[in-house]
Amino acid sequence: MSARPENRRRPGRGERTGGAIRQLPFGQVARRLAPVEVLSADEVEAIHRAALTVLRDTGMRVLDPAARVAYGTAGARLAEDRVHLDPDMVAEHLRHVPPCFTLEARNPARSLRLGGQDMIFASVGGPAYVMDNDRGRRDGTFAEMCDYIRLVQDLNVIDQEGGGPFEPLDLPAHTRHLDIYHAQIRLLDKSWQTQSLGRARTMDGIEMAAIMLGTTPEGLIGRPVLLGIINTNSPLQLDIPMAEGLMTLAAHGQVNVVTPFTLAGAMAPVTLAGALVLQHAEALAGIVLTQIVRPGVPVMYGGFTSNVDMRSGAPAFGTPEYVKAAQAGGQLARLIGVPYRSSNVNAANEVDAQAAWESQAALWGAVMGGAHLVEHAAGWLHGGLTASFEKLIVDAELLQAMREYLRPIDTSPAALALEAIAEVGPGGHFFGAAHTMERYESAFYAPILADWDNHPNWLQRGGVQARERANAIWKRMLAEHSDPPLDPAIDEALAAYVARRKAEGGAPMN
Amino acid sequence: MSARPENRRRPGRGERTGGAIRQLPFGQVARRLAPVEVLSADEVEAIHRAALTVLRDTGMRVLDPAARVAYGTAGARLAEDRVHLDPDMVAEHLRHVPPCFTLEARNPARSLRLGGQDMIFASVGGPAYVMDNDRGRRDGTFAEMCDYIRLVQDLNVIDQEGGGPFEPLDLPAHTRHLDIYHAQIRLLDKSWQTQSLGRARTMDGIEMAAIMLGTTPEGLIGRPVLLGIINTNSPLQLDIPMAEGLMTLAAHGQVNVVTPFTLAGAMAPVTLAGALVLQHAEALAGIVLTQIVRPGVPVMYGGFTSNVDMRSGAPAFGTPEYVKAAQAGGQLARLIGVPYRSSNVNAANEVDAQAAWESQAALWGAVMGGAHLVEHAAGWLHGGLTASFEKLIVDAELLQAMREYLRPIDTSPAALALEAIAEVGPGGHFFGAAHTMERYESAFYAPILADWDNHPNWLQRGGVQARERANAIWKRMLAEHSDPPLDPAIDEALAAYVARRKAEGGAPMN
Repeated sequence: MSARPENRRRPGRGERTGGAIRQLPFGQVARRLAPVEVLSADEVEAIHRAALTVLRDTGMRVLDPAARVAYGTAGARLAEDRVHLDPDMVAEHLRHVPPCFTLEARNPARSLRLGGQDMIFASVGGPAYVMDNDRGRRDGTFAEMCDYIRLVQDLNVIDQEGGGPFEPLDLPAHTRHLDIYHAQIRLLDKSWQTQSLGRARTMDGIEMAAIMLGTTPEGLIGRPVLLGIINTNSPLQLDIPMAEGLMTLAAHGQVNVVTPFTLAGAMAPVTLAGALVLQHAEALAGIVLTQIVRPGVPVMYGGFTSNVDMRSGAPAFGTPEYVKAAQAGGQLARLIGVPYRSSNVNAANEVDAQAAWESQAALWGAVMGGAHLVEHAAGWLHGGLTASFEKLIVDAELLQAMREYLRPIDTSPAALALEAIAEVGPGGHFFGAAHTMERYESAFYAPILADWDNHPNWLQRGGVQARERANAIWKRMLAEHSDPPLDPAIDEALAAYVARRKAEGGAPMN
Repeated sequence: MSARPENRRRPGRGERTGGAIRQLPFGQVARRLAPVEVLSADEVEAIHRAALTVLRDTGMRVLDPAARVAYGTAGARLAEDRVHLDPDMVAEHLRHVPPCFTLEARNPARSLRLGGQDMIFASVGGPAYVMDNDRGRRDGTFAEMCDYIRLVQDLNVIDQEGGGPFEPLDLPAHTRHLDIYHAQIRLLDKSWQTQSLGRARTMDGIEMAAIMLGTTPEGLIGRPVLLGIINTNSPLQLDIPMAEGLMTLAAHGQVNVVTPFTLAGAMAPVTLAGALVLQHAEALAGIVLTQIVRPGVPVMYGGFTSNVDMRSGAPAFGTPEYVKAAQAGGQLARLIGVPYRSSNVNAANEVDAQAAWESQAALWGAVMGGAHLVEHAAGWLHGGLTASFEKLIVDAELLQAMREYLRPIDTSPAALALEAIAEVGPGGHFFGAAHTMERYESAFYAPILADWDNHPNWLQRGGVQARERANAIWKRMLAEHSDPPLDPAIDEALAAYVARRKAEGGAPMN
């Protein structure tokens, strides 16, 4: 079939960036759909009440003395290294959490709204390894990390960089975070996530974000620009580096994403409901601490419950259990009025069908679970151990499609097309109808990576599978890339800060 | 990470079939989740009213004189080859459509419920080609078609065979359907779909289904056993073979699935709302005809709206537009109280990441759109031109995961695990907890095809991607397959019927 062959090469909905690929423009799309509810209201309440019981009776082990003092001052009962939180105390602190907030980006046009119907997609953060088709999985370098960040900058559908796509292992561990922050600011005019492991690393992020915006750390209070992921050590433990990171971010008015890593059958109960109880208890404890440090500071509820493969003990992602937990987590977060974070995850070993079906399932869980931040939305592979160049491109396609899905169907009288239907009549076709001609250029989603050609043509063009097409796309994007401009004075100030902190020895190792 | 290495080889949730693969048992799972609504109630009404306007003013071209007479007798206005249906007349006939029904299978334990919260998965039906990794795409043979049907029989998650997985081109066209029906009855104790192209082919299906159940065609009235797909020729045309098939099925109390193939930008308006208006008008016309022929006969509303790639004219599937249309179609079907059919579709050229992400998107559209029949749920490739052996296995995994997703989270007090959480306490783990040990064997979904091993292990085992693993699985299943028993007297009666009908010349070619 062929619609107007003379027009075959015209672009569809989307724009070109640097000529490399046609893609959707930068910009959030409101999620007007009601989230999927896998639990009844009673069931959500039951999990919430159970979590409150855990916090009151078993309590949370908090290893950082300063954090224990903060909890104690706010009314928690302290017993050795544990804090026991009363349900009323929890409720009192939840009252202050803002239901939505704005995150500033270096480029004000790229600032982000989170909460309510507003959702953002953040790229992969934190893996140990990098991988591509050509060289397989390996330790990452700073140069490769910068290239990965350049792609994140150029992929419009990614709203936020996720905190360093992988570890640049050619840099010394004490000062690596400084180079990463500098690269994030230089190579992105988008929002980026900070590291939050310990006070020093977190404070460096805040200092450098302040330089980026031409202000001071104190000037960032009431002006959220950084978002950091805080993982509790499940079960029921908050370690010193994470507590320091949490308190430092909150004190400076920045956003903690409190995310228990509750793997059912390992660090969490083998039942999904039990894992959700534990997730909820730990998230509540962390969220409460942010509000103790600074009432009203923006904070997010992170859901990351999945399960292990009970035959091998391997963690599994994008499973039916994961999807249900992601959606149940959204219900729990909405119950307490805290913006919600979920993730695009998978446990595949290659960018093959498995990677796609697990990711797509996780993404539906997140988006239809009411997530306001979809973390690891692009690039995650190997259960989070690896950032993949090809997966980044596959995920950009999935995210674009999701964004397009969220665009409401136009049901205006013109869109209902009664005249066109009458004009074409039985047995005709709509190729040449005026109604079609006026709209066809931007009528439908135009993919980055999907190949819809017929099979003989596709074979003749080499029979290139999605994974290999993705490889060609990221290489073409990098070849045509140019970095976003940055005020040289700011860049110099950042370089000076980095040099000084390196001379001081950087951050202590945890 | 390793959970109890001594237990690594124990099976997870599921059972073994013929020893070949571990899979979930046969059986439907109720969909208790509210469907996703992409349209407001007003918007659904607007599309419904627009479709009624089309049926009244433009009308439907009905090429079969007998069908025109039926419409006319029931009060339609006839003008040349068109029938014009009044909104009141449409409403009157919709009143009789049953909201749910049961389909009998040869094995009563495999009979199916459709409607309400009850949904079935049917395997691919109708492609021209067959494909596997070893030999690529090619014309199908009867022997290969039988092997495909054997796999459909053995994959528990497939509730119904979809009407012949591909054309066995080594058999003569006039009589091919007789051999296919015989194979469907011999090789399946599950429900199967009939062909509905013309009166003769449809009647042969009814006769042979009657023999299968030890009754007569008249004995099947009030006892639905066959389901047939009726495609209108969009726009607004019902051809003779389809009208004959529809009227023959309805007259014998069997189930029509009235499915307009409304490709936005080609046979339907370029706007999604316009394509839905056309889909709805054509579906209404077909559904009304079933109720004219036999008031109260079960019938389904088929949604198949997708879009073409406006650059090439190629049909696209599993797109954002497709997913929205699938869910909007569910809303339209629920508005008129008719059970809904959607599909698991994609336009990929290989069983790669694209095939998986498009299929997974379509599947979420169908299941969360409230479909009661997910047609082409396993095996569809190349926009429906090809039945793939490997895609059958990939889809079985997707379907199993979907079924598992639909299983409610257990929130009983024991599942909330308060005692286990207190017992393990901060910093412990749940591997050895009594709560875990009592449940771990059946706690989580155990996949058919997903490989969650760590990357070094996976590489050492050959680095086999999902597509190649699927190839090994279907071969192992076939190697260990045995056909379900069939009463020899029934088989002989079927063979005699086939022989007689072949001697008579089979079915006329359309």
